[in-house]
Formats: sequence, C-alpha cells, structure tokens
Amino acid sequence: MLEHGGRLNEVAREYGIPVENWLDLSTGINSDGWPVPEVPEVCWNRLPEEDDGLLQAARAYYGTQKLLAVAGSQAAIQALPRLREPCRVGVFAPAYAEHAHAWSQAGHTLITLDERTLNIDDCDVVVVVNPNNPTARQWSLAQLQQWHRELVARGGWLVVDEAFLDASDRELSMLSVSGEQGLIVLRSLGKFFGLAGLRVGFVVACSELLDSLQELLGPWGISHPARWVATQALLDREWQQQARLKLQQRSQRLQRLLSDYGLSPRAGTELFQWVVDERAQQWQQALAAEAIWVRRFSEPASLRFGLPTDESQWQQLQQALAKILQERAIHVA
Amino acid sequence: MLEHGGRLNEVAREYGIPVENWLDLSTGINSDGWPVPEVPEVCWNRLPEEDDGLLQAARAYYGTQKLLAVAGSQAAIQALPRLREPCRVGVFAPAYAEHAHAWSQAGHTLITLDERTLNIDDCDVVVVVNPNNPTARQWSLAQLQQWHRELVARGGWLVVDEAFLDASDRELSMLSVSGEQGLIVLRSLGKFFGLAGLRVGFVVACSELLDSLQELLGPWGISHPARWVATQALLDREWQQQARLKLQQRSQRLQRLLSDYGLSPRAGTELFQWVVDERAQQWQQALAAEAIWVRRFSEPASLRFGLPTDESQWQQLQQALAKILQERAIHVA
Repeated sequence: MLEHGGRLNEVAREYGIPVENWLDLSTGINSDGWPVPEVPEVCWNRLPEEDDGLLQAARAYYGTQKLLAVAGSQAAIQALPRLREPCRVGVFAPAYAEHAHAWSQAGHTLITLDERTLNIDDCDVVVVVNPNNPTARQWSLAQLQQWHRELVARGGWLVVDEAFLDASDRELSMLSVSGEQGLIVLRSLGKFFGLAGLRVGFVVACSELLDSLQELLGPWGISHPARWVATQALLDREWQQQARLKLQQRSQRLQRLLSDYGLSPRAGTELFQWVVDERAQQWQQALAAEAIWVRRFSEPASLRFGLPTDESQWQQLQQALAKILQERAIHVA
Repeated sequence: MLEHGGRLNEVAREYGIPVENWLDLSTGINSDGWPVPEVPEVCWNRLPEEDDGLLQAARAYYGTQKLLAVAGSQAAIQALPRLREPCRVGVFAPAYAEHAHAWSQAGHTLITLDERTLNIDDCDVVVVVNPNNPTARQWSLAQLQQWHRELVARGGWLVVDEAFLDASDRELSMLSVSGEQGLIVLRSLGKFFGLAGLRVGFVVACSELLDSLQELLGPWGISHPARWVATQALLDREWQQQARLKLQQRSQRLQRLLSDYGLSPRAGTELFQWVVDERAQQWQQALAAEAIWVRRFSEPASLRFGLPTDESQWQQLQQALAKILQERAIHVA
C-alpha cells in the first residue's frame, strides 16, 4: 500500500498532539465541502439500485452521457489496467502515485514521462493527471487531443484523471470530447465537493469500455448513502458556484501567505499550492510541531499545502510560519 | 450482471404500482435493522483511515483476530478468484449465484456440486454458503472441517460464506477454526444487521491471504460513513441479542403463515423461508398484483420469502394470500 495524505490518526500519535488539535493541510480535499443533510433510513437498510437518479444527475453535471459511477476514482484506477493485455504505460513523475502502482501491479511495463519532453512514442497507454498532483501542471486540450489521436491510432488509450478540475476553467476538461474510443476521463466527488469519505467517482469513456469495467467491478460497489448524497451534491448548482469562487479566493490567499514567509509556490490549483524547497523535510517537521500537517514529496523535495478554511485556521498557519522563522528553526535563503 | 432481489424501482414500474406501496420480501435482509444515528460530518469529508476502530470492533464481534474489512462480501467474492491460477471450483446449485459467476469470469472451471452426493474429489476449491441461500441447507462443522482437510492437502481452499449465520446458533460457524491455511470465511453486515446499503463485509483467513487480498483491493474501498456505522453496530451487543430473538420469532411466524395458505416452506433460516412449488411463477405474479414482491428461483421452481416486520406488513401478506386463494387465482393441490 502506498502512503497518502490524510493519515491524521497516525501522525497525531507520532507527534503526541491530540488529533482534534491538528490543522490538516495534507490533502487537496475541500474541507468546506458540500453540507450533507440527514440521510433517509432506506439508504442504510436497502441495497443501492442502479436507477436511483445518480447517473442522470452526473450526466447533467458533467455534460456527457457515457459515464459509469464507481467507488471513487481509485476503483477505476485499479480496474483499468486489468482490461488490457500487458503493454507499455507512460506516467509522469511526480504524479498521483496510485496510477503507476496499479498498472505495474497488473503486469504492465511502466515508462516514466517527463513534463518537459512530452515524448510518448514508446507508449501504448498514457496516464495524465490534469491538473497534475502535486505539480499543478496543466495540460492543454490541444496537447491531450494530439496524444489521444496518436495513441488511438495504435490501439492505445489516453487516461485523463481530472480529480482537481471541478473548481477550474471547464475549458481545460476533456469531457467536451469524451465518449470517443481510447479516451478515458476520471472524475471524483472527493476533492471539489469535499466528499472524500463517500467514495464516489465517475469514468467517462466509450460504451464498450464502460461495459467491460462494470462487469469487472460487479454490483453494489458504491454504498447506498453515498449514492444518495452524491446525487444531491451534483444537482446543487448554487453551492457549486459559490464553492468555486471561495476556493479560488482561498487558493490565492494561500499563495500570498506562503510567499510572505519564504515559501513561494511554484504552482497551484484551486485546491492546493505546491512549494518546491530543499528544506521540505525540515519545514514539514517544524509545521508538525505546531500541529499543522502538510504533505511532503521527495522528487523534487517539495510540500503540498491544502487550503485553510475559517479564520482560526488561517491564523494558526500564519502564526506557525512566523514562529518557525522567528525561532530560526529554518533559515530563509 | 446477474439478477437479484431488491430491484424494487424496476418492479414497481413493471406492475404500475407506486414504489412506496410495495411490501418487499424479495431479499433476505433484516428490514428492522440496526438504527443508524446521525453520522459525524467528518465521515463525509475525510478519507476513511484504517486505524479507526472498525477492525477492533469486528475482532470482538466475530471472536477472531485475522480479518479484513471489505466493501461488502461481494468485493471478496469478486476478488478471491483472482488470487489463484485457473483451477477447478465446486459450487452447489442452487446457491448465491455471484460465487459461480465470479470464479467463471476469472477463468476457472466450474463443477456443480449436489447437496445430496457431497463428492468434492474433483475440486481444488469448494464454495459453500452456510446456511445456503435459498435452500437454507445447513452444513455441519464436522463436514466442513473434513472438506477443508481434503482441500488443503492438495493446496486447495474451502470458502464458507456465512452471510446468513449471525442470527443462528454460533456453533455452526467456521469462525471458531478460522485463520488456518486454505480456509476463507465471509461475513457481512448486510443481512442480520439490515445494513445492506453500507457495503461492509469481512474476510476471515490466514494473514498471507488477507495481505494479498488487501493489495488487490487497494485503499478506501469502504466509505467513511459506512466504517463509522459498522463499528457502532458491531459494538451494540444489546441490539444484537434482541434482534436475534425477534428474527427467530418472525421466521417461525412466517413459516406458520405460509403453511396455512398451502405454501409450506421446505426449509428456512432466521431471515427467510424457502418454498418449493411448481406454481412459483404464478404465485410470484399473483403476489405482485397485491404489491408484494418475493424472489423466485427456477431450479427447482421455488420462492424465497423475506420476513415481514410490523403488523401492517403481516396483515398485507396474510390478506394477499387469502385473496389469491379465494379468487382461485391459484389452486392449492
């Protein structure tokens, strides 16, 4: 099993600080997520049914017909590699590590791609996270469409994981051209909607591939309460509009705050800022001593900061950054 | 995808009766399930964590250490066949059909076993549902242990699906000898606890197999609210005791009621009664016309009745049975 952000119980024990005192910025999840009302009793007691309105709500929200609901995009990430004979799969590094892990586990050959060179000649399948996590790199629609044409011409696939795209400009999304052979787009309710606990995601692809995936995944992968909550959240346009604005403002504020304390982000999305810094490990430990948990990456040495939500959280982060610099726990170059 | 009980939206449309008017007896799920309180907000927003107390609660409830939580026993049913090279797999017929389907899908050779002969000489793996669904056949611990010894001696597995065993005598359960090589026991919160919407089940087996299964299933298969609810339900001993008594009483009452109207069950569990009758199809349709939905099987022609819960449901069933016989919609032999 790979390591991820969000393991707060474990971290709290490690640093000896009660879990409720922590400001967890280690994920890219909107901590001001869609407000879940009480769930009807029937959702707990009865098996979920396929014709419960979830797919209609998703089709309206994503603006596309051909989609399949899955138990988080993780379920699709694990299943897709099993729908192809062993082949050569290009993945960028760094990127969300579960993609590479799943393809490798299923016996495929991994090819590490470089964000600077963009050569995919040796790949049958290419996996792109757009915007990328943690580098926040955005891929243009033109670039992705060119790759898709190249790959599909040799029977390949382009997989585009759009987990962080809900809060961004819709024009970046491959959903507008989805449904074509060899193009697979992944979406999730975990990040923008802040419903990571639900485990609901969607795969957008041609019908043939969706049928195979459904057969492999079997029935009832998504819990009934999760289906009900996801349906309501996808239909709530007013909340979505407001959340988009709030996240954009918070992300800009975070970018400014980090820059003020010598941690200028190299790039960011509406849900996180990415800071490349040789002293990433020292920063992570110093922040943890102040009960703030951020995600650290090694190649390159970097930190990913999720967004604080309310004023007390912003204060906690600012005071921690000020204290760390004042106590010279870390020297700013 | 196989057909199952519980597709009530579809059935309601087919018969033109509003879904809320139906008495759904088509599943073996306790419709008087564990009462779910309001779920903490954090369950919706944050990824589930492995060390949240679910496994401790399950270990105490099942009385065994080596177990893995999965997204319903269905998740295990689909994954287990992928942990073995193609082999010969014995399944009883009729039985819960997802087992045979999953092994066949994964490229194994199915051998249909007969409840009367019990010869497993040609099998590498044997799957037993205990008590069986829908026949309610119970397998003795001695019989299962003998099969386990035979199978493990040739590197095989015995898979025992105990989905319907929570309300029964614990002495029937293989959990008491679980953890041994080649023995896999499946449990679920769907039936006795009435939490079919949750998608939470457990696999009890040796550590080596659980590790492989966890690696195949990947992280976060169970939603966070489901983990929280399951933990509370497993800890609630008082509810469990009362539910066991209630189900036993209701099952006996159902057995008597059906017998009174010419539908003597051949066998039953605490969660359903099984009626073998040539006119199963006519009975199913006649009951559906009265807004009662039961599950029908073809080989042999039979019906499975789940338990009514409150008095109005018992009345609805009794009146429907009386009306069907009175109108001679079906002649009792």
